[in-house]
Amino acid sequence: MNEIIATYNLKDIKGNPLKKAEEIALGLTVGSWTDLPELEQTQLQKHKGKVVSVEEISDTEGEALIKVAYPQLNFSADLPAILTTVFGKLSLDGKVKLIDLEFPESLKKSFPGPRFGVEGIRGKLNVFDRPLLMSIFKGVIGRNIDYLANQLSSQALGGVDIVKDDEILFENHLTPMEERIQIGKRVLTNTFELTGHRTLYAVNLTGRSSQLREKARKAAELGADLLLFNVFGYGLDILQELREDEEIGLPIMAHPAVSGSFLSSDNYGFSHSLILGKLLRYSGADLSLFPSPYGSVALEKEKTLSIKHELLKDDEFYKKSFPVPSAGIHPGLVPLLMNDFGIESVINAGGGVHGHPGGAIAGGKAFRQAIDVHLNGQTLVNGSETNPELKTAIELWGYKEVYS
Amino acid sequence: MNEIIATYNLKDIKGNPLKKAEEIALGLTVGSWTDLPELEQTQLQKHKGKVVSVEEISDTEGEALIKVAYPQLNFSADLPAILTTVFGKLSLDGKVKLIDLEFPESLKKSFPGPRFGVEGIRGKLNVFDRPLLMSIFKGVIGRNIDYLANQLSSQALGGVDIVKDDEILFENHLTPMEERIQIGKRVLTNTFELTGHRTLYAVNLTGRSSQLREKARKAAELGADLLLFNVFGYGLDILQELREDEEIGLPIMAHPAVSGSFLSSDNYGFSHSLILGKLLRYSGADLSLFPSPYGSVALEKEKTLSIKHELLKDDEFYKKSFPVPSAGIHPGLVPLLMNDFGIESVINAGGGVHGHPGGAIAGGKAFRQAIDVHLNGQTLVNGSETNPELKTAIELWGYKEVYS
Ligand SMILES: [Mg+2]
Ligand SMILES: [Mg+2]
Repeated sequence: MNEIIATYNLKDIKGNPLKKAEEIALGLTVGSWTDLPELEQTQLQKHKGKVVSVEEISDTEGEALIKVAYPQLNFSADLPAILTTVFGKLSLDGKVKLIDLEFPESLKKSFPGPRFGVEGIRGKLNVFDRPLLMSIFKGVIGRNIDYLANQLSSQALGGVDIVKDDEILFENHLTPMEERIQIGKRVLTNTFELTGHRTLYAVNLTGRSSQLREKARKAAELGADLLLFNVFGYGLDILQELREDEEIGLPIMAHPAVSGSFLSSDNYGFSHSLILGKLLRYSGADLSLFPSPYGSVALEKEKTLSIKHELLKDDEFYKKSFPVPSAGIHPGLVPLLMNDFGIESVINAGGGVHGHPGGAIAGGKAFRQAIDVHLNGQTLVNGSETNPELKTAIELWGYKEVYS
Repeated sequence: MNEIIATYNLKDIKGNPLKKAEEIALGLTVGSWTDLPELEQTQLQKHKGKVVSVEEISDTEGEALIKVAYPQLNFSADLPAILTTVFGKLSLDGKVKLIDLEFPESLKKSFPGPRFGVEGIRGKLNVFDRPLLMSIFKGVIGRNIDYLANQLSSQALGGVDIVKDDEILFENHLTPMEERIQIGKRVLTNTFELTGHRTLYAVNLTGRSSQLREKARKAAELGADLLLFNVFGYGLDILQELREDEEIGLPIMAHPAVSGSFLSSDNYGFSHSLILGKLLRYSGADLSLFPSPYGSVALEKEKTLSIKHELLKDDEFYKKSFPVPSAGIHPGLVPLLMNDFGIESVINAGGGVHGHPGGAIAGGKAFRQAIDVHLNGQTLVNGSETNPELKTAIELWGYKEVYS
């Protein structure tokens, strides 16, 4: 029988954890059971939720890890139905955190996974042997299109692979999306002709839900490279619909905006790996941004690695999604990031590019130098002797070497 | 200047709360400030976030309540843009809970509020002088349409005003939505002819995001009374789009499924009043379900009252939305519920109707009796002497009198 298996962490369980698990399994499927006539039990058997396992973690705190299987028969093959089934009213019922969902193969087939994935994005850039470098527009609210064009140009000239919009740049009369795409294209064609280095621009797709697909198709028509998407301001199902639309056909970068509200608590909500890892990948994100363990907004290392694991692990149905550890990244953190996230990742910096004393071009160069130096097995300090931009960066921001 | 003002509770603030508040105000708007040339400061002034107030709550725990104003110029007039602005990356940045948003009038005009509201729903039922009574289908997964029709009939015959689908009943071949609507209509026309009491049926609107509007229009065409909607499996903006669609034109009942994930923590996420109260009302929910303070899944009384307050307070732009305290309600709780939520509320029960020893008809009657008894100023015990169904109910489940 095809079932989705949910793993929950429960705390403050009053009484027997197995009994609590059984209440959940019944309450979220057929309701009552023992008082049903035998004939009805036979008829409903295939709809009944089942307790798969109960692992008591702490008796005194009433904490347990439980797994419950929900028959796929009970819900339609979409995330709103799945989440409502496995975590609908349950999310409101005391200290309960949804740690993982295991999809049966029959259900996985209903989810698309990334259209391009790690290999597809690499193919667009023709870069296969190092982490990608991404940077972010900075301070663009209230600025005109020339200001953005200049920023884009500097970032590209510094050797950045992808430049993303600021996620808080919405549709506005100074820099409308369509104009950003067109001018961005012109700028990046110029920088490519100058340097031979290709840079992609991720444009922020915003607006009302029902207009997104049309806007995204228009973006594709205008030659956009990637879409940046505040998926958690909308919904995972909308991300999936953008991914599935053949007339859009663009890679999608999922921004974690708002997700702290349902990820950060140890007692409630979802695990980071499930949302920013597994479900973003299943729904079709080619890249997933999340806080790195090292920057201004930091996430525990173990959690970041669990996200990475879900994005990159082998899966017979889905392409891999790029992990993009972010926030407060400077070149001195490159060895740590590469050590944790490997080559199949994107190093993403805002202030660490723009705040370089030599400007954004030098900022990009310093990152590329840090990546190369680390790939060559050198320490940053040694490598910086022949790389002046890197030297300036680590003098300003410091560095952490990794000796492996 | 038109601004949205966000109130946050911050904990574990390192250093000065005012400094932290200023970092938020700048970081979520223009970025840096003090190092900008004077000309640019002048140009960007109207885009700059501002600290409105900082109230230190606990020095030792680094806790403060802060208010930050974000210029409306910075975002488009939709909730995904608003939430990304005021709580996008900030939601990931330590212990921070978004308590409230104050919308300027210019922004409120972009939100529809309920299409029917309390008065509109009352008008459909022709019931103006008491709380409404709602009940829920029970154990319907895996059952056929006759089973549902029988349940619906019993609930209506017991004097229930609204019957809602179970939120975990999705599109399925046994009881497809279109059939539920049509058969439901037939059943409820029959019961109305029998008893003269009108009952409305709230059908669960489910499926992929982009199909919802078409499905809802079809539901309206088939004569559906109300839509039940798992808004948090989708997104508030989708609720709003359903509300705004003139071809749908149905009242919408918002189910809180999944919302515990971003409401339950004291440290992270959103306040109950903001989401289940204010934003559901602004987006257009005619009814908002939430756990009552008294049942199987309980929410602190103060929080439930804050939700009610947002749903019912006078507002020059919006109609009122019905508060629907839910979960584990039985007739013995009616005095408490009416005392807390008043007449402008819906008393909502599942097991408290179906689990009545005399069956669901008796279950509905017991609730209606409890409501009348309390409205007449009698205690339940006194009133139950002439109301046998109520007597049975309070013997089984107990009761709490309220002496006011
Ligand atoms: Mg940003
Ligand atoms: Mg239910």
